[in-house]
Amino acid sequence: MLKIVISGPSGCGKGTVVKELLKYSNYKLSISVTTRQKRSTEEEGVHYFFKTQEEFDSMIAGDELLEYANFCGNFYGTPKDYVDKTIKDGFDIILEIEVEGALKIKDKFPEAILIFLIPPTFTELHSRLVGRQTESEDVINYRLSRAREELALYKKYDYIVINDDISEAVRQINAIVESEKLRSHNRKDIIDFMLNN
Amino acid sequence: MLKIVISGPSGCGKGTVVKELLKYSNYKLSISVTTRQKRSTEEEGVHYFFKTQEEFDSMIAGDELLEYANFCGNFYGTPKDYVDKTIKDGFDIILEIEVEGALKIKDKFPEAILIFLIPPTFTELHSRLVGRQTESEDVINYRLSRAREELALYKKYDYIVINDDISEAVRQINAIVESEKLRSHNRKDIIDFMLNN
Repeated sequence: MLKIVISGPSGCGKGTVVKELLKYSNYKLSISVTTRQKRSTEEEGVHYFFKTQEEFDSMIAGDELLEYANFCGNFYGTPKDYVDKTIKDGFDIILEIEVEGALKIKDKFPEAILIFLIPPTFTELHSRLVGRQTESEDVINYRLSRAREELALYKKYDYIVINDDISEAVRQINAIVESEKLRSHNRKDIIDFMLNN
Repeated sequence: MLKIVISGPSGCGKGTVVKELLKYSNYKLSISVTTRQKRSTEEEGVHYFFKTQEEFDSMIAGDELLEYANFCGNFYGTPKDYVDKTIKDGFDIILEIEVEGALKIKDKFPEAILIFLIPPTFTELHSRLVGRQTESEDVINYRLSRAREELALYKKYDYIVINDDISEAVRQINAIVESEKLRSHNRKDIIDFMLNN
């Protein structure tokens, strides 16, 4: 089973694409912890585990996080035990995390599949951030300049998927996951079976 | 455009799978040269360019082959100019070659995608070789022992595809080709476009 990291600039549509992927039975979502304020559309234990700064610090101290990062003033982290358990249960786990955290995961787990999701144009990214109506102009401008920095790091990712049409992006991610499972280093069992039967 | 090498033990069904793949418009087949005797089902310039040993030697001397190998007493080679022209014309070129030649291609062109096609079981491989009724028992036994050696090299391939159900094998190969095109090192143009629009 694979660790699949879906990441990309804020406003690239990670959330929507991940929601669609989760309709397939092989995937489960890794639920992150965050110190960010809950948005009205979000639910505790579904979108995030919301934590105080003190609680978050104690998880860091206890080495309970695979990675954590400060993004736009808030902390986000991936709880270790949840990821391990999900893979053990036979699911491909999706980690929907921002770019800094994604690269940390790849450092620790080179076998993780990093998928960089991008909007078709920078203009489109801008209008998605504005259309979301959840951030101030200052925050939007910060996110846009951050996006330029993140896009420069695209080579650190394994795959780039354009999120223009959602169903097309989902189809491409499914093709990536399928083909990764066919990679020779994941096929020892199949070869052994073939030789002995 | 990609160089896709479809290889595997003799009797794995390379030919049938490749024939199905060629129904998709993105693929073209690299036609090999061989000193092997033409089978009654084969056509010059479609399945192979059939050459005398003398003609083949002169192609080696003139550096006109990407790779060549002696397999079961016959020479097989991949003509350079045909492969280059096909990629330039915008096609994914399929090289259907035996294992030794496939590994030589990967050495020279690390960006080539090596797909190892295997039957579901060794028993099945045996009955396919017998069912083909084109080789003597000695040749079949030679091919079977050769297959064991080749299967041990599976890690040198990028992907392993089981050829049990042909349409399933073709679907998997199409997923591999699609996902390879989404790899970040193939996506510089997309990133540049996105940043400038």
